[in-house]
Amino acid sequence: MELLSSHRSCDGSQERYRHASKSLNCNMNFSIYLPPQISPPLDNRSQVPAVYWLSGLTCTDENFATKAGAQRAAAELGIALVMPDTSPRGEGVADVADAYDLGLGAGFYVNATEEPWSRHYRMYDYIVDELPALVEQHFPINDRRSICGHSMGGHGALMIALRNPVRYRSVSAFSPVVNPTTSPWGKKAFSHYLGDDIKNWWAYDATLLIAAARASEHLPILVDQGNADEFLAEQLKTERFIAACEAAHYPARINMRAGYDHSYFFISTFIESHLHFHAQALSS
Amino acid sequence: MELLSSHRSCDGSQERYRHASKSLNCNMNFSIYLPPQISPPLDNRSQVPAVYWLSGLTCTDENFATKAGAQRAAAELGIALVMPDTSPRGEGVADVADAYDLGLGAGFYVNATEEPWSRHYRMYDYIVDELPALVEQHFPINDRRSICGHSMGGHGALMIALRNPVRYRSVSAFSPVVNPTTSPWGKKAFSHYLGDDIKNWWAYDATLLIAAARASEHLPILVDQGNADEFLAEQLKTERFIAACEAAHYPARINMRAGYDHSYFFISTFIESHLHFHAQALSS
Repeated sequence: MELLSSHRSCDGSQERYRHASKSLNCNMNFSIYLPPQISPPLDNRSQVPAVYWLSGLTCTDENFATKAGAQRAAAELGIALVMPDTSPRGEGVADVADAYDLGLGAGFYVNATEEPWSRHYRMYDYIVDELPALVEQHFPINDRRSICGHSMGGHGALMIALRNPVRYRSVSAFSPVVNPTTSPWGKKAFSHYLGDDIKNWWAYDATLLIAAARASEHLPILVDQGNADEFLAEQLKTERFIAACEAAHYPARINMRAGYDHSYFFISTFIESHLHFHAQALSS
Repeated sequence: MELLSSHRSCDGSQERYRHASKSLNCNMNFSIYLPPQISPPLDNRSQVPAVYWLSGLTCTDENFATKAGAQRAAAELGIALVMPDTSPRGEGVADVADAYDLGLGAGFYVNATEEPWSRHYRMYDYIVDELPALVEQHFPINDRRSICGHSMGGHGALMIALRNPVRYRSVSAFSPVVNPTTSPWGKKAFSHYLGDDIKNWWAYDATLLIAAARASEHLPILVDQGNADEFLAEQLKTERFIAACEAAHYPARINMRAGYDHSYFFISTFIESHLHFHAQALSS
């Protein structure tokens, strides 16, 4: 791992690293916030839990680090923040010119099976397995994990947690694309990455996964959604997730927030409440 | 005034406007945060005070709005935030290609007297007179003002407040260029904007203004400076401001912060304490 930058922030350290990813067959950057509870000399008692943040379309690992203001609450709560990129990157990685919703910046956190995507676009494996293993090996971070994200990444967080309820203590999302198999963004991405057989899409759809979840493996779920979000009606369709949770008796807390839109101003308003939500699950 | 954007943030509203500036002879954008204490229907009781934020080199009105996380404390305290741009903009505005520290983004908050700058580069008048008059006319914001900034803008805040102690209740700065008449950034900018006679620079230098301040007009001053700031030794020279305050018995609070650098991670760590500092002065 190569350290790209380090900035003191809220008595902790905001850092950025590059590493060679085996899952993605390319070099990847990630950002990480190490709270002040991690302080040298390190010992087992200074290990902290981590919240993984999955960003939305067009983002990199840096948007959340610079715009959400999450470090303050993470420092108070003694939680590390792990912020991966949103797709594989670099020369030779497939992309579509002028499409913000397919290719670079738009990995959708799936393992692609189709050409030309399958060599690099394996973000599901990267987020679920490779990155946590790397982070827990190199930093004093334990295996208590929660996961959170925005829009495409809000869905990624829900989908990954629902498929891996033993690996995460809690999951939360801002403005998630809850039902990608029926949204224009999701249908475009899944048809390219996963092919035309929609049966192969189902395992990557949080609303469908809710119905399949075992009651014994229910996780704490928190969703915040602005009712002035410009993508709500066409892309996000929060009401489908609410209906699925009700039908499956999955106890999710879903807040519709009056006047808020899809921007980082929404995230920065409520990120502290999300981190408190995760802290409770991580400490229990 | 033209509304360019509006986002709900911390129960208030983060907005961006364009207007024709008479001081600067061009169209200017500014950002403004209106806290939730301003709520329609408006009446005199819902007027709030304002903290003006002056940004540093290369910034626009948007950097602080998106990266500092200041809205949360402003919402709690009932303070509006007014965020101007750092220079005149647009076609016909003088600039120097490839110089980040002169021309666009580098107005240094002075009234230029030299060609080709004097037609547009009158940021001092814009910040001191035109923008407050505009803001106090269009929004339920009263004339209780404080001022704050970063780097070039940290100096701008100190310089403007020291020259106008009746117009401001308090002043604070992050990483200010405290003595621009002796720093490379300041000398370059002042020689172009103000000419070669350094006597004409003195009225724009906060360290020199401290010596000239009347004790009856002393303002509350707060400065935060990181000791790992990459510009500290060559450009910022905080020790000169500390010495000037001591010599003049000007009671400034100047905090050297271990490990912090020049970035927005430093600002976002301490902006809440600055807004609490200003709130106390604005309410007394």
